[in-house]
Amino acid sequence: MNPTGPLSLSALGSFTIGGRRVQVDGQPTRVVAISRDLPEYLVDPNGTYRIEHAYVQYFLPAEQRRLPVVLVHGGGLTGSCWETTPDGRDGWLQHFLRDGRPVYVVDNVERGRAGWCPLPGMANEERPILRTEEEAWEIFRIGPPDGYAKLDPFAGCLFPVEHLSELSRQQVPRWTTTTSLSVVAIAALAAKVGPCVVIAHSQGGGIAAQAAAERSTDIAALVLLEPHGLPAQSDRLPTMPQLIVAGDFIDLSPPYQSLRRRWLEYLDAAADGGIIHEYFDLPAMGHPGNSHMIMMDSNSEGVASLVGEWIDEVAS
Amino acid sequence: MNPTGPLSLSALGSFTIGGRRVQVDGQPTRVVAISRDLPEYLVDPNGTYRIEHAYVQYFLPAEQRRLPVVLVHGGGLTGSCWETTPDGRDGWLQHFLRDGRPVYVVDNVERGRAGWCPLPGMANEERPILRTEEEAWEIFRIGPPDGYAKLDPFAGCLFPVEHLSELSRQQVPRWTTTTSLSVVAIAALAAKVGPCVVIAHSQGGGIAAQAAAERSTDIAALVLLEPHGLPAQSDRLPTMPQLIVAGDFIDLSPPYQSLRRRWLEYLDAAADGGIIHEYFDLPAMGHPGNSHMIMMDSNSEGVASLVGEWIDEVAS
Repeated sequence: MNPTGPLSLSALGSFTIGGRRVQVDGQPTRVVAISRDLPEYLVDPNGTYRIEHAYVQYFLPAEQRRLPVVLVHGGGLTGSCWETTPDGRDGWLQHFLRDGRPVYVVDNVERGRAGWCPLPGMANEERPILRTEEEAWEIFRIGPPDGYAKLDPFAGCLFPVEHLSELSRQQVPRWTTTTSLSVVAIAALAAKVGPCVVIAHSQGGGIAAQAAAERSTDIAALVLLEPHGLPAQSDRLPTMPQLIVAGDFIDLSPPYQSLRRRWLEYLDAAADGGIIHEYFDLPAMGHPGNSHMIMMDSNSEGVASLVGEWIDEVAS
Repeated sequence: MNPTGPLSLSALGSFTIGGRRVQVDGQPTRVVAISRDLPEYLVDPNGTYRIEHAYVQYFLPAEQRRLPVVLVHGGGLTGSCWETTPDGRDGWLQHFLRDGRPVYVVDNVERGRAGWCPLPGMANEERPILRTEEEAWEIFRIGPPDGYAKLDPFAGCLFPVEHLSELSRQQVPRWTTTTSLSVVAIAALAAKVGPCVVIAHSQGGGIAAQAAAERSTDIAALVLLEPHGLPAQSDRLPTMPQLIVAGDFIDLSPPYQSLRRRWLEYLDAAADGGIIHEYFDLPAMGHPGNSHMIMMDSNSEGVASLVGEWIDEVAS
């Protein structure tokens, strides 16, 4: 496999999935200037909207050799996180496509090309959050807080720090009120695409695991990169084979020490339920240096290969 | 050329372009619940942001036979408007890729994967507009206002009305305060990609023409699908060959009668300046039935071919 070689596709395109129709009445009109040719454009917000869907872009390899992969981004990001890495290398989208896997890249509800609903009373009413570069530096475990100003990361960190600003430009506003809508969208997507493998990052991991609990027959395997928001032990658990992938520097980050306890509890519950499960502690496996942005770190191709091998073992 | 045949790419990926760094200070922190595992997440909005960039996804054909094409969406839409049509056919993205043209699909500033800036005092402070399905029906010249309820379009209209809801799901919030930022982004993209051909729709047409006036050496030809916001006669005009494409039913729509006068005035000014120019009045050319959404109508492949032929005549 040549990670920069050509890509032969049978098709590429996009669709939306999920969501609902809403009808708005009784709102005032307003006049706006859209362009110099439309200086007094009357906007009437009353009428029909389609909201709360996800956007899905798909890439089908000319020679399909494996199950489709659905890529689910984390909080504050879109499907672009799986494309070109901040330092310009091919991402996991291209990697899994070269493996002969159809790839479905999601912009989940209220992110990216899925749009969001600015109408009063809807899930996007609250003011959204946009992550600062300083917060990304710290919460993505790139380096210590006082290392940001000089882009001085944790020793051995594989995130391409000189391209941190490109990661910042991939950040989009996010709401804290839309998780359950995102779960519905991923469940609907799995039902449409399945049988498939879902690979999900961070907040997307919790969303994917919750969706998988509803669609166990459509999702053949679940790969969770440092997830949060996993189903609790009292919830129904997804039953397909599951892999949690964890990077480095967790001992230096109290929030991730807490999340790691959750990952191990979750996998213990899977073991109790007789569910095939695996934990990739990357540093312990001889792959040190990963930040939270495992698909962007300089060893992203290598980790993708490890993940692909695990998938092929449990869901071929 | 087989419009559903395979696509051989040398590469695909994405990057961002333009924008700026801003620093925020003195804003209050707040605690939000991001997931059940992060129920008390402290959000500190103070710090560094990267805003006002565009997102660009690129598809490079294995065999490049022609100049690159940059596709610029209209108001309220994203780059997804050039992908799969609402009724599931390949769009102009795939068409021009099969022509052997590298294709760059833009999500301009504040749209789609480009994100937007929810911070006070920035270009997105005002409440955005989201288009209703009723307004799309009317302003995209699909049918008369009283035809919407029964999806009864203008006689002969080629928009796939039974899939109107898919067009609605492609709509995203848009601001009326970001046009000049979008012009800057397209100019920067042309400088990076050029020499290239820019194909732009509706509001994107005005943005592209304004950008082209600044980057006449990078843009070899300009294709404007029913544009608005074109440079005025007193402005500097772009000097490369230019094509305006107009659909049907304009005589039934007063706003488009006014826009058509602007298109013809603009082309007259181009003629006066010795600029190569063309006007495709599609019905007069024997291609009746186009709505404003020319790239989505059922003859979208045929119109794309006409546009491609014009490009090859003026910029090969």
